[in-house]
Amino acid sequence: MIKINSAEILCVGTEILIGDIINTNAAYISKKFAELGINQYYQGVVGDNPARLERKINEALERCDLLVMTGGLGPTYDDLTKEVAAKCMNRGLTLHEPSLAKMKSFFAGRNIKMSENNVKQAYMPDGAIVFENNHGTAPGCAIEDSEHGKIIIMLPGPPNELVPMVDNSVVPYLTQFSECIFYSKNINIVGMGESTVESYLSDMMRNAENPTIAPYCKEGEVRLRVTAKVKTREEGEILCNATIEKIRATEVGAYIYGIDTDLETALINILRMYDKKIAAAESCTGGLISKRITDVSGASDVFDGSVVSYANDVKNKLLNVKPETLAQFGAVSEQTAAEMAEGVRKLMNADYGVSATGIAGPGGGTPEKPVGLVYIACASENGTVMRKLNLRGSREHIRHLTANYALSLAIERIRK
Amino acid sequence: MIKINSAEILCVGTEILIGDIINTNAAYISKKFAELGINQYYQGVVGDNPARLERKINEALERCDLLVMTGGLGPTYDDLTKEVAAKCMNRGLTLHEPSLAKMKSFFAGRNIKMSENNVKQAYMPDGAIVFENNHGTAPGCAIEDSEHGKIIIMLPGPPNELVPMVDNSVVPYLTQFSECIFYSKNINIVGMGESTVESYLSDMMRNAENPTIAPYCKEGEVRLRVTAKVKTREEGEILCNATIEKIRATEVGAYIYGIDTDLETALINILRMYDKKIAAAESCTGGLISKRITDVSGASDVFDGSVVSYANDVKNKLLNVKPETLAQFGAVSEQTAAEMAEGVRKLMNADYGVSATGIAGPGGGTPEKPVGLVYIACASENGTVMRKLNLRGSREHIRHLTANYALSLAIERIRK
Repeated sequence: MIKINSAEILCVGTEILIGDIINTNAAYISKKFAELGINQYYQGVVGDNPARLERKINEALERCDLLVMTGGLGPTYDDLTKEVAAKCMNRGLTLHEPSLAKMKSFFAGRNIKMSENNVKQAYMPDGAIVFENNHGTAPGCAIEDSEHGKIIIMLPGPPNELVPMVDNSVVPYLTQFSECIFYSKNINIVGMGESTVESYLSDMMRNAENPTIAPYCKEGEVRLRVTAKVKTREEGEILCNATIEKIRATEVGAYIYGIDTDLETALINILRMYDKKIAAAESCTGGLISKRITDVSGASDVFDGSVVSYANDVKNKLLNVKPETLAQFGAVSEQTAAEMAEGVRKLMNADYGVSATGIAGPGGGTPEKPVGLVYIACASENGTVMRKLNLRGSREHIRHLTANYALSLAIERIRK
Repeated sequence: MIKINSAEILCVGTEILIGDIINTNAAYISKKFAELGINQYYQGVVGDNPARLERKINEALERCDLLVMTGGLGPTYDDLTKEVAAKCMNRGLTLHEPSLAKMKSFFAGRNIKMSENNVKQAYMPDGAIVFENNHGTAPGCAIEDSEHGKIIIMLPGPPNELVPMVDNSVVPYLTQFSECIFYSKNINIVGMGESTVESYLSDMMRNAENPTIAPYCKEGEVRLRVTAKVKTREEGEILCNATIEKIRATEVGAYIYGIDTDLETALINILRMYDKKIAAAESCTGGLISKRITDVSGASDVFDGSVVSYANDVKNKLLNVKPETLAQFGAVSEQTAAEMAEGVRKLMNADYGVSATGIAGPGGGTPEKPVGLVYIACASENGTVMRKLNLRGSREHIRHLTANYALSLAIERIRK
């Protein structure tokens, strides 16, 4: 059995070097290495040039035991990853019939004539372990050199092909080489600040060895990452769950809205649990809160609709915000936020109405109402709560944070 | 004058190696290299480890003349980029008083006490050219070694600090070393497919030398990239504009909606030009079209509001979609799309009403109405046009494409 002391990633593609694409593949694979307990000290990118590629492969194999390469498995003349890697490992290339058959059926299923150059993709380094590609034509593969204790893995460049191949083939393949894995769960918390969370859990966090507990601050919420160093995922599940239960039993417990989830999914789940519906009245977010809610498939169970009320006229006409409120306090005010939330709750016949009104910038700020001043509200049969936010950053960031806080506030209210 | 034959990027940070962050900085700098005509053959990532960092810097300097490094300029003990790079270039570090003063005022302006370890960030390699940081505390810098013809540039890791520093300091600094730059403009086209665009322009594209003309397909639109190899930006501007004018004079001209823009900005601009307003009625997009419109600062000039009508009841009650239409054709139909667009136009008192209704998936598809079937419509005083879309991909992708096509359709209609 080859022992993997360290791994490297080498991404192949001139389009990365000219900045045409952002290298998300390296981050994705790195995360999996971390979970598998595989060390990585270097990462590289090289263009579609066989001489430079060969040099980089040989350099990497001198340092590490596992080299994962992405890209350059396509059908064109400049896709040379397999050819060069096979040469570095002293292998030939042979037609892999199952891959060719799969490729033919891929094209047939799409009613496209397979062009001759695609056949190149079915040639595999001798003795390679082939990873099926269920989302494209180029299979991936692993070449093991037991004599020198080296492994090269090659994966297709498009992320929609690489990600499932990593999940379904590469991670299971690599697990055999890992003595331990790192298994993590994230505890999602809203309504309690990071420092308060830490103050309640400081002893527990300091004394935690396996699993460890680490807080990290996401925008508008707090997460605790519980990470166990274990032999199997099952063992990780048990250890992490035990720690999560301990945390649930503290003062923090009431503020946990989910495990490994996000605000919109958690909101949909809690609404579904209580059989309630929500609607949004959006000014500065301009549709973003509703977009986030409907990002979740099946949102229609708990969401009938929303109103984007950018103009005061719409706030008044559709949401019944009183002209006096707008005149006295302005569109960006606690009072307007409250009436918007109440108005949309009524209009949409919903159990909860959530609203946001503020100044997202970069224009429109005044000394009294600067860019980043936002009011959110949530109305229900138990009354309306409002919250004032002072946010910083770009228009996009302020709108994103506003949606986070609005979704958080709704979860908080529903939970009460 | 140092001659830059090739450059490399070396990003420093263990957080990249464990997959916690995606390396957008490398892509951003690579794009600038391409514009400046600077070749890049390799890119690397290394953790916060001084020995490995030193090795990587020395290896890179053997291959290239310009090494741009990101990250590791912070105040903590493991931020060592400057220290190691200075060592590789045989420099000491000296306190740079203007940077310290700027840092002090940065903290004072935020009412935060500056901690002692921040002073470390104001130490600069001897003889370095310092790049001001207007969005954070760590200045960047360049060290030139004229004897060996090498330059190292160091930039802070956070993208919101790096991007403006690259734009405002690094690009102007590097321009002096470039014999030529690549100046590009993108022509944005909607309403004509890529192959049709190419058929009209094939001779022009084939014969183009400087500038070159290259098509690339964005989601729901076509772009032509016009790239001139020139000595100055001014010269590039003139050459590119001349080519753009030639393209405007072809059949493609009528389908150009903008230069270097995006659909939402182009929509706002054309509405503003004609002093018209738009409103959206969104079913499957769930607020995304409105979100996209209000992504543009100043959208309130042309946009008062929208309705997210997820449920049929809301389509009927607020948008006046007839119960017979829903019963006979269903919510996902041309007829419903048309009535939604007309309804929201009237409700919001807008000149244009745009709508989308469809099946974003992954659930909810049937053999007759599969996932990806979407109808969009645009209503105006001149009537309503509908369009049927057959889209593929994830829920997110289908919603994104739907918004693209809806914004495109609106631009097309307004331009008529």
